[in-house]
Amino acid sequence: VPDHAVATAYRLTTEAKLKRFAGATLAAVGVEVADAAIAADVLVAADLRGIESHGVARLARDSIARLRDGTLAATPDVRTVRETPTSLVLDAGNGLGHPVATRAMKAVIAKADLMGTAFGAVRGSNHFGIAGYYAMLALEHDMIGIASTNAVRSAAPTFGRDVMVGTNPWAYAVPAMHEPAFVLDFATTAVSRGTLEARERARVPLEPGWALDTNGAQTLRATEALTGALVPLGGLGMDNGGHKGYGLGMLADIMCAVLAGGTFGTDVPLAGETRGGAISHFFGAIKIDALRDLAAFKADMDAELRAFKDSAKAPGVERIYVAGEIEYEKTLAYRRDGVPVHLSVWNELEKLSAELAIPFELAR
Amino acid sequence: VPDHAVATAYRLTTEAKLKRFAGATLAAVGVEVADAAIAADVLVAADLRGIESHGVARLARDSIARLRDGTLAATPDVRTVRETPTSLVLDAGNGLGHPVATRAMKAVIAKADLMGTAFGAVRGSNHFGIAGYYAMLALEHDMIGIASTNAVRSAAPTFGRDVMVGTNPWAYAVPAMHEPAFVLDFATTAVSRGTLEARERARVPLEPGWALDTNGAQTLRATEALTGALVPLGGLGMDNGGHKGYGLGMLADIMCAVLAGGTFGTDVPLAGETRGGAISHFFGAIKIDALRDLAAFKADMDAELRAFKDSAKAPGVERIYVAGEIEYEKTLAYRRDGVPVHLSVWNELEKLSAELAIPFELAR
Repeated sequence: VPDHAVATAYRLTTEAKLKRFAGATLAAVGVEVADAAIAADVLVAADLRGIESHGVARLARDSIARLRDGTLAATPDVRTVRETPTSLVLDAGNGLGHPVATRAMKAVIAKADLMGTAFGAVRGSNHFGIAGYYAMLALEHDMIGIASTNAVRSAAPTFGRDVMVGTNPWAYAVPAMHEPAFVLDFATTAVSRGTLEARERARVPLEPGWALDTNGAQTLRATEALTGALVPLGGLGMDNGGHKGYGLGMLADIMCAVLAGGTFGTDVPLAGETRGGAISHFFGAIKIDALRDLAAFKADMDAELRAFKDSAKAPGVERIYVAGEIEYEKTLAYRRDGVPVHLSVWNELEKLSAELAIPFELAR
Repeated sequence: VPDHAVATAYRLTTEAKLKRFAGATLAAVGVEVADAAIAADVLVAADLRGIESHGVARLARDSIARLRDGTLAATPDVRTVRETPTSLVLDAGNGLGHPVATRAMKAVIAKADLMGTAFGAVRGSNHFGIAGYYAMLALEHDMIGIASTNAVRSAAPTFGRDVMVGTNPWAYAVPAMHEPAFVLDFATTAVSRGTLEARERARVPLEPGWALDTNGAQTLRATEALTGALVPLGGLGMDNGGHKGYGLGMLADIMCAVLAGGTFGTDVPLAGETRGGAISHFFGAIKIDALRDLAAFKADMDAELRAFKDSAKAPGVERIYVAGEIEYEKTLAYRRDGVPVHLSVWNELEKLSAELAIPFELAR
């Protein structure tokens, strides 16, 4: 966030204050304190990584409003659907995605610790924040973490015009020794709806390969795109690999929802629909020492990460990043200098504090 | 392949004849018959799926020439480096990639059958053909198959100009009931070097977002691109998600080579270098009934695949495909009508038959 933008459009808070506030609001609408704390941790992790679209910007509209109107269950009946020593399927009972996803990923990690590897899926859930959060839970256990989720439908398949699939992200976290972990966390669309909305606010045209209008033709107008469809990673058609992004998005729907026995395909709500319990997640963990000596692996990971970062830059470029590095550096900076919260979100939170009678003590 | 092209630039053969010929040539240069048959099966599977760049076009130059000059070991000493009930690491001893990859994937499937899921990696290997072949081995076992490999370096990272990473594909195969399986098998670059070579032969400019010249600037000239670098899936920079393709390519290098203790990063040979034993692979299998009732899963997979195929088409488009469908239909057509082999490859094979004193009986 540039300095002048912080001065005008952002307010600064701290990680602790933001977590405390988010947790208190969730508890105030009936979420158990432990679950509320987990959800707050996930939401604020997104803000700390600079992924504002998945942070506390989601708190008022996505979580609190839906918990209050009963679209989401505040105290869900989470059930184990199937379990083996290397696998787990949970039904989230239409609760918040974050607590059940954390529970599932932790169970997968515990199983992988005993068995070498394990997988889990969750159905009947809701938005769970950033997929990278769950993949990263594996890091301190010296495992490779994998996480995915389907999401409200927002994108068309390659050659299609119907909105069939969400931004359906995949996340992979791999530990290193001295270098920050490799954390790849990406939507399988070229861009997110948040990017379209930002362009609409800024009155800047879209880039080619981002979105379709309602007729299935490419549009550079954000307003048209927001009622149309996102385009898969790789762009329109197959020339630049759009079928690869489409395939990865559909793979997420399969691995999360079809594998968990959840809501898949066109039964997944459209962006803007508020139906609850229709989102599914997928988690995996692979213990590194099941395949290689841990210290040797981590030392080689450092070498691998440094080789890419130290390689020659394209003309006019100052730095090459590895996956997760930009987000890692933002976390360090925001912990040091304060966490920026967009003024519009800040005002939403202040309104929420009044509604729920929770003190608004976010200022840094 | 259009009819007129078949008539001029292609000759037709059959699956059985092509496999027999490829296997005989490999056996003639010292590969054990069982291994030669596996390599032939993998190569011809690529031709059957319409992926000519990975089929028998590779036989003379990539396999036979390198086996004859000793760059590759004809009878490699394949060693088990590490093994647990859910994991396996093999050292390929610088043999052909196809037999050791098949052995590793079959072992992973056997472990997953007992344990629910398993993973394996192979180091010290060479080109293994199409990743999808190994992922698809899981299908008849009612498992989800995963395969990846690193590859000779051909692409620059996002914001970079050094050639740091290969086309490093990922493949996922998921069984359905009546529908053909979902088989996603994709290079993590926007296009392959083969696509650049085809454009060079046809004297057609490249598309934006495909390749860089040696200075790290985008080029639309195939000749410049072939001495430059490929661009990751998602294109140049981060605007259209190029960092996602870059991340997926680097992830393959990590999951294959770093995890197996193989050759990674800048130690991987450049495209055109012939150093052997420097390629690594990664395999995984997830047993479906560890997570969900198999029949219910397969029925839902049919519904999922049909929903995408039946969705509304973009203007001027006749069909929407799901991953692997184009390749599946080519296989059916080529089994019925004959397998097309490009005239240049046909001539290479005929030359090979003379050199190795193997009857050239490919004509359909």
